[in-house]
Formats: sequence, C-alpha cells, structure tokens
Amino acid sequence: MRAAEIAEQRCSIARPAALLGDRWTLVILRQAFNGIKRFEDFQESLGISRSLLSERLGRLVDAGILRREPYKDSVRTRDRYRLTEMGLDLYPVLMALRQWGDRYLADDYAPVDIRHRDCGGEPLLELRCSKCGEEIGARDAEVRSPIPA
Amino acid sequence: MRAAEIAEQRCSIARPAALLGDRWTLVILRQAFNGIKRFEDFQESLGISRSLLSERLGRLVDAGILRREPYKDSVRTRDRYRLTEMGLDLYPVLMALRQWGDRYLADDYAPVDIRHRDCGGEPLLELRCSKCGEEIGARDAEVRSPIPA
Repeated sequence: MRAAEIAEQRCSIARPAALLGDRWTLVILRQAFNGIKRFEDFQESLGISRSLLSERLGRLVDAGILRREPYKDSVRTRDRYRLTEMGLDLYPVLMALRQWGDRYLADDYAPVDIRHRDCGGEPLLELRCSKCGEEIGARDAEVRSPIPA
Repeated sequence: MRAAEIAEQRCSIARPAALLGDRWTLVILRQAFNGIKRFEDFQESLGISRSLLSERLGRLVDAGILRREPYKDSVRTRDRYRLTEMGLDLYPVLMALRQWGDRYLADDYAPVDIRHRDCGGEPLLELRCSKCGEEIGARDAEVRSPIPA
C-alpha cells in the first residue's frame, strides 16, 4: 500500500488520517480554531513557507474543512479561510490531542487555560458509554464488525 | 519554522502533532489498538515497506507510546510491540478521528461497530464542561492564557 491508498481504505480512522495526518495541517487547524483567518497571519504566526501553507490550506478547502471567503483589504481582494461546520467538528480531535499532550508532553511549560465561555469550567473530553454512562478506555471496548484491512 | 521545530513549541497540540501527525503513524496505532503486535503482522496488514514501518515503530518506541517486548518464535527471538499506558491513553484521539470520519467521510462503507465490553452500549466521545456538564463545541470555549506562537 502506498500512502495515498490510506485515503481509499474503508475506515474512519484511515481516511481522517490521510487528510489530517500531517504535522503542518494540525497546527494550521489549531491556528484556525484560535481565530486566525488571513493567509498572512497563518504564515507569520507559523513561520511556514508560503508554498507549503498554500498547499495545505488548499487541501483543507478541497476537503470541506475550511472555506475561502473573499474580503477587500486596502489594495485588493484577498481570501480569508474559515472553518466550516465540518471543520468546527474537528474540535474534539484537537482537544483529544491537547489533553494527551498536556498529560504527557508538557514537561517544560504550563498548559493553555481553555474555559467554557458560559460558566468558566474546564472542558473535559471523555469517551463514555451511551448506554450505561461509564467511562470507556481502550481495554473496555470491543470491535463487533470486521476490521478493515 | 521548520517542521522539526513544531516539536519544540510549548504547545500541547503542536507536540502531539509532531509525534503523531503522520498518516502511517496513525494507522499503525489503529492496528496496535486492534491487537496487532508483531512486526510481520503490522507489515502484512498495512502493506507498508519494512523500512518505513521499522522507522515509524522506532519513533513510537522512542516516544514511549509503544514498548518492545521480546518473544521467541520457532527460530529466534523477535520483538513484539505493545501499547504502553501513554499509548493506551491515545484511545480518545483515535476515537475522535473515528467519530468525525464516521460522520463526514464514511460515504461508501458501514462504520465499524465498536461497543462497550460490559454492557454493549456505544462509546460516545464528548467534550463537556467539568463544572456545569454542558457539551462544549468550538464556539463555546475561550482561551484564557496567552496562545503560544
């Protein structure tokens, strides 16, 4: 199997992995969730090359995760990049990475303080059983249908 | 910024992204959660080249996500790769990808049926407020501390 074929697997981990399994893509999405919209702001905040950024943003637009929205600056019309509903629904993926990163990789910095806007509580990502309500870890789950190759 | 510098950012999304932001790494982890342990089984089930697989497994071992465990087959001692606690704690990340993939990318296949072993209920990943219990989407959260560059 070549890397491109990962996207063709009938698997809901492989397909997102093919789209998002790229370190630049994940930090670009982080910036989008932080409110960054303009090409220049992505570029300056990340220090990524223009060609790399342009390619990654284009892929996210093609996938339906970002949408281009024209705006007029002082000189000409440019594009802003905004998360679509499909993109906004990636929030739990980034929060899952963050929760794991805070736990295991934040040995030399303080975790970013993210709060529920309404009440100031801390967001907590949990995998729970929709029937009995218990928390589910890797050892508590079983696959009942055939696993794709 | 070069790609390697992503890992040096003081950010709990950038650091996991630098480790896991690779399509092969994510499907290798999927296989590990599916119970695959032997190099040959990873290789055959993924159709990945031996050198690529070896490099990716080595990186996951170095990061503390997998550990090597020697075992004797009929001919000689080989290594098995098992998820550590740190690795098992990536389950919500893969489940977040899966939930999103099921929702947006599963247009030509049936989602894999994963169940809570104890009661048969479906695992549901939710970002909830630890204070008021409400579900938190991207628009309901705010960052209170400075965002790393």
